[in-house]
Amino acid sequence: QGTRDHPPAQAALRDRLLAAVVACFKRHGAAAIDTPVLELRETLTGKYGEEAKLIYELQDQGGELLALRYDLTVPFARYLAMNKITNMKRYHVAKVYRRDNPATTRGRYREFYQCDFDIAGQFDPMIPDAECLKIVHEILSDLQLGDFLIKVNDRRILNGVFAVCGIPESKFVTTCSTVDKLDKIPWQDVKNEMVGEKGLSHEAADRIGEYVQLHGEHLGGQALGLVLPGRAGPVTQGCKAHTRLARPIVAGLVVSCRFPQSLSLLRACLSLQASGEKVRATETQVLVATPQKNLLAARLKLISELWDAGIKAEMFYKKDPKLLKQLQYCEDTGIPLAAIVGEQELTDGIVKLRDVATREEVRM
Amino acid sequence: QGTRDHPPAQAALRDRLLAAVVACFKRHGAAAIDTPVLELRETLTGKYGEEAKLIYELQDQGGELLALRYDLTVPFARYLAMNKITNMKRYHVAKVYRRDNPATTRGRYREFYQCDFDIAGQFDPMIPDAECLKIVHEILSDLQLGDFLIKVNDRRILNGVFAVCGIPESKFVTTCSTVDKLDKIPWQDVKNEMVGEKGLSHEAADRIGEYVQLHGEHLGGQALGLVLPGRAGPVTQGCKAHTRLARPIVAGLVVSCRFPQSLSLLRACLSLQASGEKVRATETQVLVATPQKNLLAARLKLISELWDAGIKAEMFYKKDPKLLKQLQYCEDTGIPLAAIVGEQELTDGIVKLRDVATREEVRM
Repeated sequence: QGTRDHPPAQAALRDRLLAAVVACFKRHGAAAIDTPVLELRETLTGKYGEEAKLIYELQDQGGELLALRYDLTVPFARYLAMNKITNMKRYHVAKVYRRDNPATTRGRYREFYQCDFDIAGQFDPMIPDAECLKIVHEILSDLQLGDFLIKVNDRRILNGVFAVCGIPESKFVTTCSTVDKLDKIPWQDVKNEMVGEKGLSHEAADRIGEYVQLHGEHLGGQALGLVLPGRAGPVTQGCKAHTRLARPIVAGLVVSCRFPQSLSLLRACLSLQASGEKVRATETQVLVATPQKNLLAARLKLISELWDAGIKAEMFYKKDPKLLKQLQYCEDTGIPLAAIVGEQELTDGIVKLRDVATREEVRM
Repeated sequence: QGTRDHPPAQAALRDRLLAAVVACFKRHGAAAIDTPVLELRETLTGKYGEEAKLIYELQDQGGELLALRYDLTVPFARYLAMNKITNMKRYHVAKVYRRDNPATTRGRYREFYQCDFDIAGQFDPMIPDAECLKIVHEILSDLQLGDFLIKVNDRRILNGVFAVCGIPESKFVTTCSTVDKLDKIPWQDVKNEMVGEKGLSHEAADRIGEYVQLHGEHLGGQALGLVLPGRAGPVTQGCKAHTRLARPIVAGLVVSCRFPQSLSLLRACLSLQASGEKVRATETQVLVATPQKNLLAARLKLISELWDAGIKAEMFYKKDPKLLKQLQYCEDTGIPLAAIVGEQELTDGIVKLRDVATREEVRM
């Protein structure tokens, strides 16, 4: 299966990453719209070219042909068109579905998050585009992945490259989708697909090869990035971000950026984490513990006060747990504090707060 | 369609509600696990009784029979079983899918969020159950819906009622699923289904009717709630919450609570909102505005500083927008502040901060 369960530590980390992305999108004044996962099949028809074969079709269920959304852009275009909206800045962080050959090792999933930020409308040139680049910069900075390079692309440049290489205009789109695989498979395989499946000549393919293998830091005196169709080149650390500048959609132009596989980010962060901080599955701040028997009521009373005060707290679901087991649980799960109520503490009307790591205790 | 787009104000409100629910679950030390929406069909087979007809089946795509998850509990049970986990406290807030007759007016959707909190494991009696009730109490309190009543149910009581009414044990489950509709359709329709579809006698149905129509605030001197199968009665304000106490699942016992239709909460809140606070679609704190032409660079510089400082800011994507339009936009969208940089402000090295509502301005 190309889908899989995400166990607690991974899910916690992913949630933190997605929260950082959403925070950035909100900082830029984007509104959320929530379009459904279940789209009418006809909404998706003709929107994805060759990729259409990867759309998940549902069984005909009462005459309604449904499909699972393939990305967040086409539903957004539908939303704009249906509601006759021409100007809108929105974000959407949600799952999309692709009937792909599962290959989780290559980072391809059937079910994954996309994080889209879109500015729809006609504006003065390059102002929304600049904001998208700023967003990419902010998010990659927030993730603290070290140095990165944002490469700016423009589909017109790629089309220009194709024209110079002698590709007929009718083959621009299909050639493009092959070039698009360059970040996943080596050039030789890309070339084979161009010649074998797409019917380009060896010479034309080789000419394209010369261009797309340029990393172009100083192409013509300017920092032009690697020209990939609708996609910025992979940045350092396996982290990848789209910026798709000024694409026409149904109701006008959309300038957008996308973090297509938050799992790429996740992998990057997991490798970071591997070398440092342990990822906790929960955010529990304190365990309410008792050292003697018959103190369940005291634990319930204290934990209830903590919860009401907004403090993240846990306790054992046993009537009479052993103190050692309770403290061991804190160490295993990374809970930093234990609030201990024993008979003496009850008599004194206090709580003993123990720092699990240092074993220091404070009466309070 | 029983699915639909959620426009910005609604999506923003829903996100706030879900965030409050997640915050409560985390406060109680629950970990997240993320099971996929695309489940193998066989995982769901035999788990939902009569409701199985509402499972969304995907087309056979390469020999793999998939279905969309119907709830978050069965996938959780699969997760526990696959990973041989017996003890776990987890939450999951995510969408589930039901091939229902769309009837959005009755609050039935094909695609909606469930918010589940589950404690799996064998523990001393009633301690996890008490925590579930506390969670329901905290969330309903957080939502500030006014007074509410939590009704506690136990499937054994309902089975007892059925036995007393002379229902054969073989019909307990199917009768239960009819009683379950009482919060959506009137008693007479429920009775008709019992007699017509489920084959109960008129007399037995009438006897059940006597019980299930009791609201039972003082049944036998105790505050016993309306006995509904696996479901607490509807609380005030159209807000509904499950607590399912100690249900057996694959790998042991699970005590859980669920807010099955966050949209019910949403509706409740929307009606609250209708009478008071305006729901904003964005959280933008300040609009960066200019009163004269040729100040795009100044706006870009200022807004970039604001974003980097974590302040939610917007600007117009026009080179030379009119000040009046910029201030009007603040009023329309509820942005409380405008940061104005004009030629004079640039010369003085300051920014004029305007309170949009009071029109007061401060130079800073």
